[in-house]
Amino acid sequence: MEVKKLINLSELSREELMDIIKLSGVIRDNSAYYMDDCHGKIMATLFYEPSTRTQMSFQTAMLRLGGKIIGFDNPQNSSVSKGESLKDTIRVMSGYADIIVIRHPLEGAAYAASLYSKCPVINAGDGGHLHPTQTLTDVVTLWYERHHLSNQTIGCCGDMKNGRTVHSLIRCLSSYKGNRFVFISTPELQMPDYITEELTEKGVEFSFSNSLEESIPELDMLYMTRIQRERFPSQEEYERQKGVFVLDEAKLSLAKDDLVVMHPLPRVDEIAVEVDDDPRAKYFEQAEYGIYARMSLIIKMIKGSSKKELPEVPESTHDFKCGNPRCITQTEQYLPSLFDERGDELVCRYCEHTFVQH
Amino acid sequence: MEVKKLINLSELSREELMDIIKLSGVIRDNSAYYMDDCHGKIMATLFYEPSTRTQMSFQTAMLRLGGKIIGFDNPQNSSVSKGESLKDTIRVMSGYADIIVIRHPLEGAAYAASLYSKCPVINAGDGGHLHPTQTLTDVVTLWYERHHLSNQTIGCCGDMKNGRTVHSLIRCLSSYKGNRFVFISTPELQMPDYITEELTEKGVEFSFSNSLEESIPELDMLYMTRIQRERFPSQEEYERQKGVFVLDEAKLSLAKDDLVVMHPLPRVDEIAVEVDDDPRAKYFEQAEYGIYARMSLIIKMIKGSSKKELPEVPESTHDFKCGNPRCITQTEQYLPSLFDERGDELVCRYCEHTFVQH
Amino acid sequence: MEVKKLINLSELSREELMDIIKLSGVIRDNSAYYMDDCHGKIMATLFYEPSTRTQMSFQTAMLRLGGKIIGFDNPQNSSVSKGESLKDTIRVMSGYADIIVIRHPLEGAAYAASLYSKCPVINAGDGGHLHPTQTLTDVVTLWYERHHLSNQTIGCCGDMKNGRTVHSLIRCLSSYKGNRFVFISTPELQMPDYITEELTEKGVEFSFSNSLEESIPELDMLYMTRIQRERFPSQEEYERQKGVFVLDEAKLSLAKDDLVVMHPLPRVDEIAVEVDDDPRAKYFEQAEYGIYARMSLIIKMIKGSSKKELPEVPESTHDFKCGNPRCITQTEQYLPSLFDERGDELVCRYCEHTFVQH
Repeated sequence: MEVKKLINLSELSREELMDIIKLSGVIRDNSAYYMDDCHGKIMATLFYEPSTRTQMSFQTAMLRLGGKIIGFDNPQNSSVSKGESLKDTIRVMSGYADIIVIRHPLEGAAYAASLYSKCPVINAGDGGHLHPTQTLTDVVTLWYERHHLSNQTIGCCGDMKNGRTVHSLIRCLSSYKGNRFVFISTPELQMPDYITEELTEKGVEFSFSNSLEESIPELDMLYMTRIQRERFPSQEEYERQKGVFVLDEAKLSLAKDDLVVMHPLPRVDEIAVEVDDDPRAKYFEQAEYGIYARMSLIIKMIKGSSKKELPEVPESTHDFKCGNPRCITQTEQYLPSLFDERGDELVCRYCEHTFVQH
Repeated sequence: MEVKKLINLSELSREELMDIIKLSGVIRDNSAYYMDDCHGKIMATLFYEPSTRTQMSFQTAMLRLGGKIIGFDNPQNSSVSKGESLKDTIRVMSGYADIIVIRHPLEGAAYAASLYSKCPVINAGDGGHLHPTQTLTDVVTLWYERHHLSNQTIGCCGDMKNGRTVHSLIRCLSSYKGNRFVFISTPELQMPDYITEELTEKGVEFSFSNSLEESIPELDMLYMTRIQRERFPSQEEYERQKGVFVLDEAKLSLAKDDLVVMHPLPRVDEIAVEVDDDPRAKYFEQAEYGIYARMSLIIKMIKGSSKKELPEVPESTHDFKCGNPRCITQTEQYLPSLFDERGDELVCRYCEHTFVQH
Repeated sequence: MEVKKLINLSELSREELMDIIKLSGVIRDNSAYYMDDCHGKIMATLFYEPSTRTQMSFQTAMLRLGGKIIGFDNPQNSSVSKGESLKDTIRVMSGYADIIVIRHPLEGAAYAASLYSKCPVINAGDGGHLHPTQTLTDVVTLWYERHHLSNQTIGCCGDMKNGRTVHSLIRCLSSYKGNRFVFISTPELQMPDYITEELTEKGVEFSFSNSLEESIPELDMLYMTRIQRERFPSQEEYERQKGVFVLDEAKLSLAKDDLVVMHPLPRVDEIAVEVDDDPRAKYFEQAEYGIYARMSLIIKMIKGSSKKELPEVPESTHDFKCGNPRCITQTEQYLPSLFDERGDELVCRYCEHTFVQH
């Protein structure tokens, strides 16, 4: 298994994903054995926007493998990238490091970085686009807490419309047989059509709910996310509805005994503090699974990677740029234009935005 | 010896303190032997307010033991803690790390953190309340430079009123027999009553002085601190008095040959630069003793700690909150209300503020 | 060989420099062998002004030797140095660390630091004055890409007037026999007289050019630097001339097959992106040579340094201060006044500014 980049979790085959999941558990149970596994190796964490939590989870994973860390955490504090192209920064940093973890406010930035890197690249978030190691964390948690990735009734509660991590999790779990989804949200913040259409195409069962209380009894897993106050249509609506999507002891008392409650953290008030002591609350354990999941991924990528060398940059497939204003190709002019055809449509290989071809 | 937390130096018994002091010297003389003592261990330095010097002294100590570091140094730069409770951050971080060092602007924050941490917690300063490893450093320096913690005449010069480190040092040393204290300051900045009352209760000898020059000949140890310009009653007063509490060669020439001069650093101008070359000036050595003291403490805490597990959170002792506006319980609402009775009074277990019970 | 400080590359003898160059290549070819060479050692990177790229190159070098890192990267984020003298910071930090790397906005700061440091000091840039490890990097690159430091025709293109790195490189290479220099720039940004006078004195051949296109065919090495837009006499002049000093494929097609193109990076648009794929473009390799060069230097300095002890501070040679407003002696008042006589002139030992003695 050679994983040169992890930009999108769907790049991994089912077998590769299961390999990573299984290694996560081995590491958890034998962490001393892996303590020097990446001795002498360097991870560069290139954070073009700050995300201390994500950066620390990667750093912890690398340090627990005996590796070392360089990097920056904020372009405002950093002279790197000051007027320098992403390509140049990646060329230099991939000469310094053995693996790159990149977070960037623009969509497709991690893919763009992978085109010029001599070492493996992990996407730690590219704008509102993807954040594959969060989903990897969620799946690892589900596997070790429920012992299955299939035949689960999975509730997702909160902001379904803007939830990058929820979309990615649903895509991943919908390819395992027998999973059913319940989307619990306000009408305004329900799951976008392109997700539900995908599910319909795949023949996956799903339903909508506007009440956590009513839906919780049937769930095997509950994935909580936050609804930001400003997402409600009005202040009155916020006051009227805010409690509906908050998990508290009363609602939890209606759930199955073996329900698994997850949350990508940080939590604000969508889960009452009283829930923390319930054995079904697994969100802090989930943060720890995130370390094992990343350790596992790093091992696969560093061990699997052959000699450091520049990848071959693909040639432009078309002679125009992606129209998505948040696509990395908007600011990094030297990037080749890369689109994949899907029926009538063109899909940008960086940001996955879709265009109708004329 | 199992030390799960160091919030207040007075938690340590005399024997435990002497253990740590003695190990500090062993480490100093055999540092290569301890070079990998914490191999594979991670320290999280969670600095909710910046203090580069303190953070670097902990980091150096951990690195010299072969350990590794994660953490943040400034909430403004950090997405951790953004709207996240202290409890949640500690729950997650104590899953990542093997020991936590916390600095926080609110009093009692380190104690609050210790309630939710799966790994040992060291207080690196909680507001104006405590900073136990500075006092540990001072005591280690005194031991190795004077070979005694008792029977010393100890001068403290500068701002006695607001000097957290001086108060803590006096409390610690006043429990060793035969020590006498001389408090050298302006009348406005003299030692608070609760400190001198404690000394009187314990039967410890002390006196007040308004002249460093007059008092220096009798001292065995001189602890210098800074008087900030704005602490003087007026600009004229400042101009008139500023020299009185500055240690220079002229004053030092009146002192004993084996006086030990300490300063918690950074120094501004309360010690003239010319003093640096005098063999009695030990403040730079003191900074190095701070490394050995912290190395010793870290070893005791990491080695002494059994399997990582959540502590049992105590139940509230009373049904009201501490009234100290700088107490951590003011902002972290989920914290149990914990007070200890002392005669008529209640003492907050977080910030140690005292209230009369009605 | 004992190197206690590297403030100015000219402090190294030819033999010492060649030693470092040769070790760089050995490290490159046997990096696993050096992986733990500085195990247990700590580097303090004290960056009084941010320079993420330089800091990361030193950090990477130290980490690749198995060493560890402490430090700060920005006085605004840092409480170190807040009202603390450079001397005090260095005294404390040189007690914590085994080697210090300092960058400071004032000229002569690294030399001043070396006066008070118990461990070796490397200058990572002191204002507009010196940046010796960049030149070391350039020379290492030239050696391994051209196999000679002599008998080369060396073109320097861009801003010759303000180019600290170019000046230093010319000084270094002009002491090897048979080198010729071509300075390619606008008349306004040509090489300062004191550099060309030095070359004339040494009998070194050089010429001026205002066309990269015309000069490129004769070159063995081309050192590109950036001309900042605001350095041109006017916006019109900028528009008219900007292309003249840009290296693109068309100009490169006129060059020798074994030309070596270097650039200290970051590059803005003075080298067209299309040039990156040409085998003569060596600027990304140069960044990697910078790691090997620094690893080599660190080994020589840490291995060569005897027991940590304070150096003897020299006494003032004169009773006045250096008049250069950017000299470190302007702000750090305790520094001795140190001047060397050179004919009629006095040269400040910190910032190398020259004064006529009256």
